Amino acid sequence: MNRIVTLTTDFGLKDPYAGIVKGVILSINSSAQIIDIAHNVSPHDILEGSFYIYQSYAYFPEGTIHTGVVDPGVGSERRPVVIETEDYFFVGPDNGLFSHVLGREKVRRIIHITNSDYFPGRVSHTFHGRDIFAPVAAHLSMGADPGDMGVSIDDPCTLPIPVPERSGSAFRGEVVYVDSFGNLITNITDKDIEYLKSLSTDIEIRIKGLKIEGVCKTYSMAGTGKPIALIGSCGYLEIACNCKKASDALNAAVGEKVEAAAVPGRSYR
Amino acid sequence: MNRIVTLTTDFGLKDPYAGIVKGVILSINSSAQIIDIAHNVSPHDILEGSFYIYQSYAYFPEGTIHTGVVDPGVGSERRPVVIETEDYFFVGPDNGLFSHVLGREKVRRIIHITNSDYFPGRVSHTFHGRDIFAPVAAHLSMGADPGDMGVSIDDPCTLPIPVPERSGSAFRGEVVYVDSFGNLITNITDKDIEYLKSLSTDIEIRIKGLKIEGVCKTYSMAGTGKPIALIGSCGYLEIACNCKKASDALNAAVGEKVEAAAVPGRSYR
Amino acid sequence: MNRIVTLTTDFGLKDPYAGIVKGVILSINSSAQIIDIAHNVSPHDILEGSFYIYQSYAYFPEGTIHTGVVDPGVGSERRPVVIETEDYFFVGPDNGLFSHVLGREKVRRIIHITNSDYFPGRVSHTFHGRDIFAPVAAHLSMGADPGDMGVSIDDPCTLPIPVPERSGSAFRGEVVYVDSFGNLITNITDKDIEYLKSLSTDIEIRIKGLKIEGVCKTYSMAGTGKPIALIGSCGYLEIACNCKKASDALNAAVGEKVEAAAVPGRSYR
Repeated sequence: MNRIVTLTTDFGLKDPYAGIVKGVILSINSSAQIIDIAHNVSPHDILEGSFYIYQSYAYFPEGTIHTGVVDPGVGSERRPVVIETEDYFFVGPDNGLFSHVLGREKVRRIIHITNSDYFPGRVSHTFHGRDIFAPVAAHLSMGADPGDMGVSIDDPCTLPIPVPERSGSAFRGEVVYVDSFGNLITNITDKDIEYLKSLSTDIEIRIKGLKIEGVCKTYSMAGTGKPIALIGSCGYLEIACNCKKASDALNAAVGEKVEAAAVPGRSYR
Repeated sequence: MNRIVTLTTDFGLKDPYAGIVKGVILSINSSAQIIDIAHNVSPHDILEGSFYIYQSYAYFPEGTIHTGVVDPGVGSERRPVVIETEDYFFVGPDNGLFSHVLGREKVRRIIHITNSDYFPGRVSHTFHGRDIFAPVAAHLSMGADPGDMGVSIDDPCTLPIPVPERSGSAFRGEVVYVDSFGNLITNITDKDIEYLKSLSTDIEIRIKGLKIEGVCKTYSMAGTGKPIALIGSCGYLEIACNCKKASDALNAAVGEKVEAAAVPGRSYR
Repeated sequence: MNRIVTLTTDFGLKDPYAGIVKGVILSINSSAQIIDIAHNVSPHDILEGSFYIYQSYAYFPEGTIHTGVVDPGVGSERRPVVIETEDYFFVGPDNGLFSHVLGREKVRRIIHITNSDYFPGRVSHTFHGRDIFAPVAAHLSMGADPGDMGVSIDDPCTLPIPVPERSGSAFRGEVVYVDSFGNLITNITDKDIEYLKSLSTDIEIRIKGLKIEGVCKTYSMAGTGKPIALIGSCGYLEIACNCKKASDALNAAVGEKVEAAAVPGRSYR
């Protein structure tokens, strides 16, 4: 058995910390296949890390071990955990880093990692990615049973995730992520937009006093630099500017309020 | 069969997009060997992406699948293609991203990817790297025949690539790339310089009113910070400053005119 | 035999240079497992590269080939070398890049690479990472004997590494590295601090006129933004600010003087 191990961290790409974690994994399972999802999670931003893991985990083969290390409370009382779901394993600190995943996946069990047979080295107070999560992930990649690693718990830490509110023929949500193209990804879903479309052919998106008419299919449908709304690749409404950064053009960031509304139009029902 | 898959994209290294693409590939071929060439192509800069692929593809083993995703027209009419050459496969949008390669490689066939058996999932309008190119590359890595993936075409999109002009005993070219050391890489080739050397032992490089005498062999041959000209590792004339950024020192960027000339000297023939 | 190959370079992550090096390795050993330790060593900063390799090499399995390319003198007289120690191989320029490692590892032999059978292609004057170190590392990964690659030498280049000075009940050291969290990593060791603790229960850390009392166990033990001292994950005293960058808060960089002292306290002995 040789399951894939992914890494999502806030280590950045300057320091050798991600390389060290890989070395520890390979010292236990020398043929481990380790895939970087992201190492540039904003430092200590647990909710952003949670969103990254949520966006990407389901594209990996069944049995993949998703390791997350955004861990400002390292060395404190927060628990190290393995979350086993129907299709995946998640390894990391129990600090909310798996909040999004816990809201979607069917959880089989959550294990508070306590059995140091699976991490026999000295455990530092500052780098559990290296000292606990890497060896645990390596053992899981070789087929180890999470049940042997500690005790079952049922009170995992989750952080509040902002969800849009519906008010009549409108959804009020917010920007939850800005990607490196400057696209403003909101928490309003394709299903929300479909509901609005069942009310009217005319949809309006409002952000920072600006009104965007309709939901486009592709980035290139607008003139260069014109803000458009579209359903992004992960199923969320996003605001983009073709060949420009919407975040700059609209001066908008995470938390910015966004409204999607069905407006009386040619075929208002 | 397990061919290597490379990735050259403008996804950046903050978002989890490259990780998602790898997950899709591994879900089809769990032992795929995936190598990052670059994810920091300047956003939407197709010609830069083309140059990156051109600089690197030939160093990989025969049969390697080079996947390129710099795709501002994603979701529009631009075609997804597989280009099969004598030694390699290239997968990506038909938007000019393989312009440099098409100018050098012997093309066997170019397939417009239309057979959705090779990308059976829902295809978004915004992320064909995940929805088309990744699954196609994964199938190619396992030995799939490009001919089964769609229809042959003979009119691939290519972008104009600036080439130097010769005028008597001089070549007039330009800076085509600035690397992260600040070296100014031009489109004047080692062969051009050899031709000039057949005319005179004295070569002069002119950029921004500055005259650089001769072509050095190594970065360290100049005093610290002094601009020098040399033939870079890919066979192009470049302007560098030992231990400094020539791009800063000369305030020069892509498109800057550069002239290389044989000048009357000790042994002008 | 298939040993792991690691890469530590100053190539950065924009240009395709790291990808090219991997292509060369895979063209020789198509199943090579190549792990990035870091490509963002500050350009030409040999001592920083040496420190990166030192921090990470020992976490990898026995037999790993650690390849380092921070090479401002490429093309000059500096020698390409393989260093074989009890557990590892190190490949790169003999310019001090292995200074820290040479101070800790038991060296079996150091080979000046001269046998071009192991790098049969044209050798450029500017990119030995591609032309010499990559093919040599690939051959080592398949079990080649370093002794066949050149001649034994015993005068490797090493750079002076700053060490703290003890003066009575205090150690005077300096910041040797600032990581991307802004933590100030010093050259004062956990052993130095243990010695001070044998003198007094009260330890004081002094930096930029600031006095920090005691050595904490975890980043989260201080209030947000308050500077603390702790033993970092690699065994060195470091100055951190919980959830802030100590480097910004204290306006401190590499070279900044740091003093750790046992002070008369409740139990001064």
